Amino acid sequence: MSTRYASAIPGPAPPLDDAAPVPDIDAAIDPCLRQAVAALDGAAPLLAGMVRYHLGHVDDRLLALADGAVDRGKRVRPAVALLSAGAAGGEPAAAAPLGAALELLHNFSLIHDDVQDESPTRRHRATVWRLWGVGQAINAGDALFAASHLPFFRLTEAGVPATLVLRLLEAFDRMTIAIVEGQTLDLGFEGRPDVHPEAYLRMIEGKTAAIVRYAAWAGALLGGADDGTAARFAAFGLALGLGFQVRDDALGIWGAPAETGKAPADDIRRRKQSLPILLLRERASEAETAEIDALSAAPEVSAEEVARVLAMLERHRVRDSVEARVAAYHDQARVALLEAAQAGDNPCRDGLMRLVEQLAVRAG
Amino acid sequence: MSTRYASAIPGPAPPLDDAAPVPDIDAAIDPCLRQAVAALDGAAPLLAGMVRYHLGHVDDRLLALADGAVDRGKRVRPAVALLSAGAAGGEPAAAAPLGAALELLHNFSLIHDDVQDESPTRRHRATVWRLWGVGQAINAGDALFAASHLPFFRLTEAGVPATLVLRLLEAFDRMTIAIVEGQTLDLGFEGRPDVHPEAYLRMIEGKTAAIVRYAAWAGALLGGADDGTAARFAAFGLALGLGFQVRDDALGIWGAPAETGKAPADDIRRRKQSLPILLLRERASEAETAEIDALSAAPEVSAEEVARVLAMLERHRVRDSVEARVAAYHDQARVALLEAAQAGDNPCRDGLMRLVEQLAVRAG
Repeated sequence: MSTRYASAIPGPAPPLDDAAPVPDIDAAIDPCLRQAVAALDGAAPLLAGMVRYHLGHVDDRLLALADGAVDRGKRVRPAVALLSAGAAGGEPAAAAPLGAALELLHNFSLIHDDVQDESPTRRHRATVWRLWGVGQAINAGDALFAASHLPFFRLTEAGVPATLVLRLLEAFDRMTIAIVEGQTLDLGFEGRPDVHPEAYLRMIEGKTAAIVRYAAWAGALLGGADDGTAARFAAFGLALGLGFQVRDDALGIWGAPAETGKAPADDIRRRKQSLPILLLRERASEAETAEIDALSAAPEVSAEEVARVLAMLERHRVRDSVEARVAAYHDQARVALLEAAQAGDNPCRDGLMRLVEQLAVRAG
Repeated sequence: MSTRYASAIPGPAPPLDDAAPVPDIDAAIDPCLRQAVAALDGAAPLLAGMVRYHLGHVDDRLLALADGAVDRGKRVRPAVALLSAGAAGGEPAAAAPLGAALELLHNFSLIHDDVQDESPTRRHRATVWRLWGVGQAINAGDALFAASHLPFFRLTEAGVPATLVLRLLEAFDRMTIAIVEGQTLDLGFEGRPDVHPEAYLRMIEGKTAAIVRYAAWAGALLGGADDGTAARFAAFGLALGLGFQVRDDALGIWGAPAETGKAPADDIRRRKQSLPILLLRERASEAETAEIDALSAAPEVSAEEVARVLAMLERHRVRDSVEARVAAYHDQARVALLEAAQAGDNPCRDGLMRLVEQLAVRAG
């Protein structure tokens, strides 16, 4: 019995019931995931090498790494997919190829994001573009995106009707378009002081929440849900995904370093235009706005300046607003899940509910 | 009756038989293509805008362009797909969604290639990354790759069995992996003086020929071919694709500017490591090799130096070798097509044969 998926979200998780037969997400998806990556083995060993490096399967000399040697990511998306299949009354394992596909897709988007954001590190290791250049990092992402489709073709072997597989695949590609749309908006927001909080929420709905929504919807369908039930799972996933991201924004400012693994108020230091800062901009006086603008343009942010922004956030009660939004997503997700999932003894539904409950934990 | 596809390959084409009922490739694929691109319309207008700009549907202010206002590319790949469906005994139109998918996939790879090669222009217009930056160009390519899958999902509406659609889709993603593999090798070759001609041919087999091979194979299956026949169409497409690329390499050096639209010996000026140069390196004396190396490192290549390289190529009879390879691909493609296609009156097979015959036209 693994409790791995319970560590999917930063912040303290409620204790897991050791007796609950929840799936070991890593063990369930790993064979599918590695089989899809093996499709990249060919005339250009660097291609599969870069992808395996990013996934934490090999080091920067492309030598194998043992399980647990490096952080391979939180696997939230596969967890939502497999638990939704179980919560809908099916076998969680029926969604294992779906979970592998989602993990690969997510990692494709990370490789390209790191290029776009010029991020030097990811999960405490150098990013692919830093090691092999922008051109090859684009290739690694492109190949991983192509490979992320491959697990779906194994579903028919397990008895899933071909028409359902096609439906899941079409929605997968449309969901990817939503992710890229969110990323396009995000890059467009950079350096703009006038981004409205609602525009920001639309952006994260694509960039972050669309894949969680899809994971719950497609997982439920593979678990035997009818269309109406699957739509309720989708509503659950959307609220969960939005809640995760807004909570992440809160943790970026008020999170305890011991929990987030980042410096205190790291997003202020990095001048990230996250939801708290956008809400602050809406409420700030002219003098405060001038100060925030000066900060956005400065090459470095001092500890004193960080403290001043924190004081502004406090003065305008931004934290309360952000936490109220997280609480609203928590309630939406909770209601949708209770409507969607099978009643009675259902450990997978309980597993999903634990993911929801983490949203209710006050940040930092 | 359109003869558009006959202009697909540079160089003079034999006259078309006006009576032959060959399909108008543009008219056949355009509705599918535009429907897939419309899936990018959403919260980020720039995303669909960049893609439409690249496809020649809009200008750089995202205002609509009339048909024919700009070069929209040669549409070789859709032509091969639709003509293969017809040559296999089916309706060319049955492969229209496939043709649209291939055109979109090809254009995804061009958008990312332009970033990787830092190419400032494509089809006489500024490239996407030049206008909107590298980050957004990566997004445009990613979204176009996702959208390139969408036409496949329309095939079942036309009565194609879902299991066949899944087979075509899996091969489509595996073919894309081959393209990216070729691109990975190509970037890896840059600045390396020791690339073997056979390694180069393996690279173009992925980067250029895999998609033509797939177009013929998948087109034939949609035209009703059995697996054995489709495999012969695949062999045809592979030889055609390799022949195109090697002929393109020859035209880059010996092509007449009036035909290629480029400066004479443009690939020598651009110091491109194409097949003729790699063959020359194999045969060059030590003194000649030193000269080629110096040229590769120099910031500019003078007209005199171009003339010296042309003389070296002449001295080592490189052109004969390159033309012998093109002739061999021509013969392979011809034989495979005659084995693959339905006998008797078959204008689509004749259309494919005209594409093959263009390989036999001496370059320049």
